[in-house]
Amino acid sequence: MFTLHERLKNDTAEIVSLKLCIVLLMKDSSFPWLILVPKREGVREIHELSPDDRITLMEEMTLASMAIEKVYSPDKINIGALGNLVPQLHIHVIGRFAADRAWPGPVWGSGQAVPYGADELKSAVSALKEIFNQSARSGL
Amino acid sequence: MFTLHERLKNDTAEIVSLKLCIVLLMKDSSFPWLILVPKREGVREIHELSPDDRITLMEEMTLASMAIEKVYSPDKINIGALGNLVPQLHIHVIGRFAADRAWPGPVWGSGQAVPYGADELKSAVSALKEIFNQSARSGL
Repeated sequence: MFTLHERLKNDTAEIVSLKLCIVLLMKDSSFPWLILVPKREGVREIHELSPDDRITLMEEMTLASMAIEKVYSPDKINIGALGNLVPQLHIHVIGRFAADRAWPGPVWGSGQAVPYGADELKSAVSALKEIFNQSARSGL
Repeated sequence: MFTLHERLKNDTAEIVSLKLCIVLLMKDSSFPWLILVPKREGVREIHELSPDDRITLMEEMTLASMAIEKVYSPDKINIGALGNLVPQLHIHVIGRFAADRAWPGPVWGSGQAVPYGADELKSAVSALKEIFNQSARSGL
């Protein structure tokens, strides 16, 4: 089990475990917001990953971005690797809408999470799972 | 010439043109802040690049991140592809310090740029150029 994954347990729902990353959905219904956590403890920066892992990370970021596009049709995707508060490497992939609460600013630090309703969370998780599973079957 | 590059001309200094991206330094001395602009007009999202371009982008992001690490030894690197205001794909690679004006928040929207002095800008550009040229000679 990985520290960051443990730490995020209450704030996220697990979608899928890919070759490199665990993919989590942030429990903030304000944005379709995935977090990719590479299963490499102690790595803080993308450039610290091995060249092979970096290529896999790019593929998995792409998968996450396409999954959000397919399920939510956002106006823009935002991708970020920050880690100023939680240094273990993790990558945010977020669907943005011109009407969302933080637009056009970044989502980080933009306010309190708005919880999903139980059914809403269940259907978001299953829609995203389905897309990741389809991609795994068909390749990128 | 690429639209975004044109648009950023006053706010940035060019460091180097790599295989995929033009690398620009933001004229904000608050942060060592590079912007990578893929030479692919009309592309808005990382997942819209070809698979080969995505791999090159990952290499060039890594180069930029290592260049900032070598020249500035920051506490953390932040990487972001947002584009809510300027949709053409561009990637921010920023060195962060626990004492910088936006820490631990993101830099975007954190306030006015603090101009470099002329000599300061010149030496930042030449130090970064030197690192990119070294990397080009030796590979990653």
